[in-house]
Amino acid sequence: MTATHLTARDAVPGRPGHGHGHLHAVPDAGVGVPGPDDAGAPGLALSPEAADLLFRAAHTAYRFTSEPVSDEQIRAIHDLVKWAPTAMNAQPLRITLVRSPEAREALIARLAAGNRAKAQSAPLIAILSYDLDFHDTLPEVLPHAPRARDGFAEERARAEFASFNSAMQAAYFLIGVRAAGLAAGPMGGFDREGVDREFFPDGRQRSFLVVNIGHPAADGQFPRSPRLDLERVVSVA
Amino acid sequence: MTATHLTARDAVPGRPGHGHGHLHAVPDAGVGVPGPDDAGAPGLALSPEAADLLFRAAHTAYRFTSEPVSDEQIRAIHDLVKWAPTAMNAQPLRITLVRSPEAREALIARLAAGNRAKAQSAPLIAILSYDLDFHDTLPEVLPHAPRARDGFAEERARAEFASFNSAMQAAYFLIGVRAAGLAAGPMGGFDREGVDREFFPDGRQRSFLVVNIGHPAADGQFPRSPRLDLERVVSVA
Repeated sequence: MTATHLTARDAVPGRPGHGHGHLHAVPDAGVGVPGPDDAGAPGLALSPEAADLLFRAAHTAYRFTSEPVSDEQIRAIHDLVKWAPTAMNAQPLRITLVRSPEAREALIARLAAGNRAKAQSAPLIAILSYDLDFHDTLPEVLPHAPRARDGFAEERARAEFASFNSAMQAAYFLIGVRAAGLAAGPMGGFDREGVDREFFPDGRQRSFLVVNIGHPAADGQFPRSPRLDLERVVSVA
Repeated sequence: MTATHLTARDAVPGRPGHGHGHLHAVPDAGVGVPGPDDAGAPGLALSPEAADLLFRAAHTAYRFTSEPVSDEQIRAIHDLVKWAPTAMNAQPLRITLVRSPEAREALIARLAAGNRAKAQSAPLIAILSYDLDFHDTLPEVLPHAPRARDGFAEERARAEFASFNSAMQAAYFLIGVRAAGLAAGPMGGFDREGVDREFFPDGRQRSFLVVNIGHPAADGQFPRSPRLDLERVVSVA
């Protein structure tokens, strides 16, 4: 297919062989200016306040106040984001709240060196993992397809499916943390095998993300980094 | 670690060797009753209206009205969800709006048989893929780490990283579709290699999800399937 450039306000031109074009954000679109840029949220049904809370003003935090995060807040987050969609309604994500001093120490020792101070500062650290045996719950969560579990006999196929769907669930969880008025600091840099041995000794869960959760300190957020503009991300066929 | 059961309202007991317990939603917690169950959204900073729009009342759609989805709506979605977090601010997700009759036909022919009627019904179908060369934009989107690109010389490492982060971005996109007042119908069942050959002939993008987008028809949604309760998902260490 050949590439054509379009503006978002144009009709999509019909091209032989379904031409493939890009949406233009602005004529010189490139990388977006850092910072929320749409006060009015045109085209959204979501309120500007909610758009700011979840996306536009929300921001990854690296340092936190000492204000604690309660189990009730985690319950509220779960009760919200559990409704978000996954393939086959599979729910492989598991969340381990690392609360005791011993568990915190064991986790922080397994973080990349550059992540330790961030985690030390967080009132709550959570390990996100996926359950290799998520398929055992498919008969419960997908009752209209009672044979769905049978397609997951091989652990490798389960790991691949769980990895994708738990990544989506992790994204929903981060949005949920913000919905609770908290800030998240997700970190991928840690010794996954070491964390799994320590926290999931039965070998049935695989960690993939550690998330600091709390109220951001006044100086706890870096300047926002640029985002790719529309024309770099969206094309039309 | 040994497992202990907790209730969410209890303080977390200190256990030697950082005991590992589960949060209880209710004494007989198991699989949640289908349907939104928290009218008041206790513990959330998010308004009940936004919680319903994005999560609690939102619902995957399988049949749509003919009302079109404009490029302006896609722009509004992108301008919202582009702010959501990814690892290293990487932005590998690419969105292909399949608008022309020829492109729709080519895509629908590559869907699993059970997904074709759903897609036929949708006013807009989008292919979600990741860009194998996303690392080329790292100097732009992560300006404070100018050497970050160097860590992605191997395409296999890029594919793994892009797969995880584009799954998170896909989740944000689905939330964004709902934020625009639309319904999404994500589908994983399609011929990915065939779609890639047809839509991404340069071999630099890998499709992983097809999403129907529009306004749901009156009978376009199945009854909501159960979600795992808190105690099945969240534990405490």
